[in-house]
Amino acid sequence: MEGEPTMRLRIFDLNCWAIRYLSKRRQERVRLIGDTLRQEHFDLVLLQEVWSEQDYSGLKVKLAGSYPFSHYFRSGVIGSGLCIFSRFPILDTLLFQYSLNGYPYMLQHGDWFCGKSVGLVIMKISGIIFNVYVTHLHAEYCRDKDAYLPHRLVQAWELAQFIRHTSKAADVVLLGGDLNMHPEDVGIRLLRGWTGLQDAFAEATRFEGCKNGCTLVPDNCFTDKSELLPFPLGIRIDYILYKAISSFTVKCEELKTTTGPAPGMGIPFSDHEAVMATLHIQRQGRPVGATLGTADLALADVVTEAQTEVGMGLQAAQRQRYSWGRMAVLALLLLVLQAAAVLGTLAGLGTQQPFPKLSFCLLAFLALGVLILATGLHLFHTMEVKILHGTKDQMRMALRALQERPSEG
Amino acid sequence: MEGEPTMRLRIFDLNCWAIRYLSKRRQERVRLIGDTLRQEHFDLVLLQEVWSEQDYSGLKVKLAGSYPFSHYFRSGVIGSGLCIFSRFPILDTLLFQYSLNGYPYMLQHGDWFCGKSVGLVIMKISGIIFNVYVTHLHAEYCRDKDAYLPHRLVQAWELAQFIRHTSKAADVVLLGGDLNMHPEDVGIRLLRGWTGLQDAFAEATRFEGCKNGCTLVPDNCFTDKSELLPFPLGIRIDYILYKAISSFTVKCEELKTTTGPAPGMGIPFSDHEAVMATLHIQRQGRPVGATLGTADLALADVVTEAQTEVGMGLQAAQRQRYSWGRMAVLALLLLVLQAAAVLGTLAGLGTQQPFPKLSFCLLAFLALGVLILATGLHLFHTMEVKILHGTKDQMRMALRALQERPSEG
Repeated sequence: MEGEPTMRLRIFDLNCWAIRYLSKRRQERVRLIGDTLRQEHFDLVLLQEVWSEQDYSGLKVKLAGSYPFSHYFRSGVIGSGLCIFSRFPILDTLLFQYSLNGYPYMLQHGDWFCGKSVGLVIMKISGIIFNVYVTHLHAEYCRDKDAYLPHRLVQAWELAQFIRHTSKAADVVLLGGDLNMHPEDVGIRLLRGWTGLQDAFAEATRFEGCKNGCTLVPDNCFTDKSELLPFPLGIRIDYILYKAISSFTVKCEELKTTTGPAPGMGIPFSDHEAVMATLHIQRQGRPVGATLGTADLALADVVTEAQTEVGMGLQAAQRQRYSWGRMAVLALLLLVLQAAAVLGTLAGLGTQQPFPKLSFCLLAFLALGVLILATGLHLFHTMEVKILHGTKDQMRMALRALQERPSEG
Repeated sequence: MEGEPTMRLRIFDLNCWAIRYLSKRRQERVRLIGDTLRQEHFDLVLLQEVWSEQDYSGLKVKLAGSYPFSHYFRSGVIGSGLCIFSRFPILDTLLFQYSLNGYPYMLQHGDWFCGKSVGLVIMKISGIIFNVYVTHLHAEYCRDKDAYLPHRLVQAWELAQFIRHTSKAADVVLLGGDLNMHPEDVGIRLLRGWTGLQDAFAEATRFEGCKNGCTLVPDNCFTDKSELLPFPLGIRIDYILYKAISSFTVKCEELKTTTGPAPGMGIPFSDHEAVMATLHIQRQGRPVGATLGTADLALADVVTEAQTEVGMGLQAAQRQRYSWGRMAVLALLLLVLQAAAVLGTLAGLGTQQPFPKLSFCLLAFLALGVLILATGLHLFHTMEVKILHGTKDQMRMALRALQERPSEG
């Protein structure tokens, strides 16, 4: 491939669903993923939900021959779950942790503990600088009443901003990951519009795999069938996106997804389907402009829509901050009253009646517990308000820039 | 200035020490800072510790005429405290929150609650693209036994990495802020070595101000004299750093610091001295190389030193994680024992003796409290371990790249 004017790059992307003690048949599946990757000779492998460092180390040892370069991104309590394997040397890496990522008290939705992030890996292949991003955004637990939409939108915005600001020296940008958004969702339109990234599925010359490119399908034995009831074909939430920044063109020759059970095996790799793209990269004379021109107006609409959603999230966060603050004040008042009662009793006032020590103590502990909890939640929602507010401001600034652009040109 | 081959840029940097209810004579000082900035006509103003959004809004209104463009960076519970005022339009902004920033339970050192960050502002002045960074790193509370050194080193590393990755399309990079590091500290050598930034104080043709460029001096009536006992002249922890990336040269013509009381006033702006630089920027034929050449070996030593410190921090964090985990397990055991005792009593065993309800309840609540607290701290230190580990890995990768460079070239 070295020195040639065109090159072909094969990319594998998969949410591996490898949660220790929780994911079904994890070790067997990780072994299967490793075996397949070793046989298939991709150039780049982008994995998500490799939560256990032992699984990563195991893969690293197994893939040392075919993918000598790799990186594991560490963050959060559990880890970001993100890692990358490559046939080509990794020159540099950077991790950006999203400012908002759910709530620590939503233990049943463990997203907060994962420290969801975007990982950047820089590579130079045949003289072409690649900025490769791998990410996993906050899950959507209930599409009709999606309490995490503002957080996922903040993440999509931060992802887009991070890509824009860090990719200015790159020739080609690649993004792979589980974005937890359907192709028509506002977050994905925002991400694509703001960065200019193209969707490999939409652009592919050839496609083979699940209908509509779905990556969470009822045919996969590990998916939750009840969640997919409104979508009989499944949903598409795992993506490979790309764009050329300088004087290159990128085309997606072929896109494939797995379709449930891995080829020749009884079980699928994961509850998600893998996405595999073959990209064709060619140097061309004139550089492709970074500005988006005619798409600006449509993009302004998307940013406005996202800004409205973030604004609604901001209002909800402000209400939460207020309620928990009030609760903390009430608990503090109760404690003060109790302290006054104790002091009164010690001073010999009202000693006619026996003092109900047990229930008094229980009440004091309860009040103390509520005080600590409510204060913690008040502080947490204060942080949430700050980030939502900041993002809304950034979006407003972006909108102004978009609206001013036509009159300038 | 428009269209000229050279330009002059005047920058003002100050840690404002504007903590509501805590900082002495805050409103008076913020008013004074605003008045001075309005009179002095700087091009760029980088402020830290503007914790209150009201103070920012007040300054914004007052400075609307001379500095029509501004940005406030929101993060953490209290806020990042960072803001920027500019004579020139701000094209884009980005905030990067440091992964580690002290401990939430160190309430007396409030750093954790501030969400310490680096803010990036992109501007185009006379056709030259400026990436301007403003930041404030974790404070140093005890220099002899600095428990926060690993955290500050992670911040210095992330700052350097963030600057390197986001400044590739810039012509000139400027960084201003309170780095909480003395000029010879490993963190500042790491930051400067890894980014190639130059120190305006060291490079200045003319200097005027506190001896050695100190910015925390005993002559300032707001500084804590006991902290400065080992440094009779004061310390220098506030910086303006710069570099040209493409075909420009930047020179520092003049650097000034305030020297305690503001000119003609009875009180200083802050407990820190302001740093004011006049930079001279000129287009030149040949682009200055981004590689550091002969400095590589010295830089490798600095990275090694930083890696050792981060490694020691990692060991300490692992010990903490282990102790709190053990404490949580012990508290859980105690609760289980107590539950067994209650069940035993209910089943009619050992009812000969009266059951000590009050102390039993107290003990149970105590165990529950310890369990919750210890679990929380165990999780927190797990996150700390992940980030320290990740940073150590990144530094190792950087070191390998540095050591391989001479043989390549």
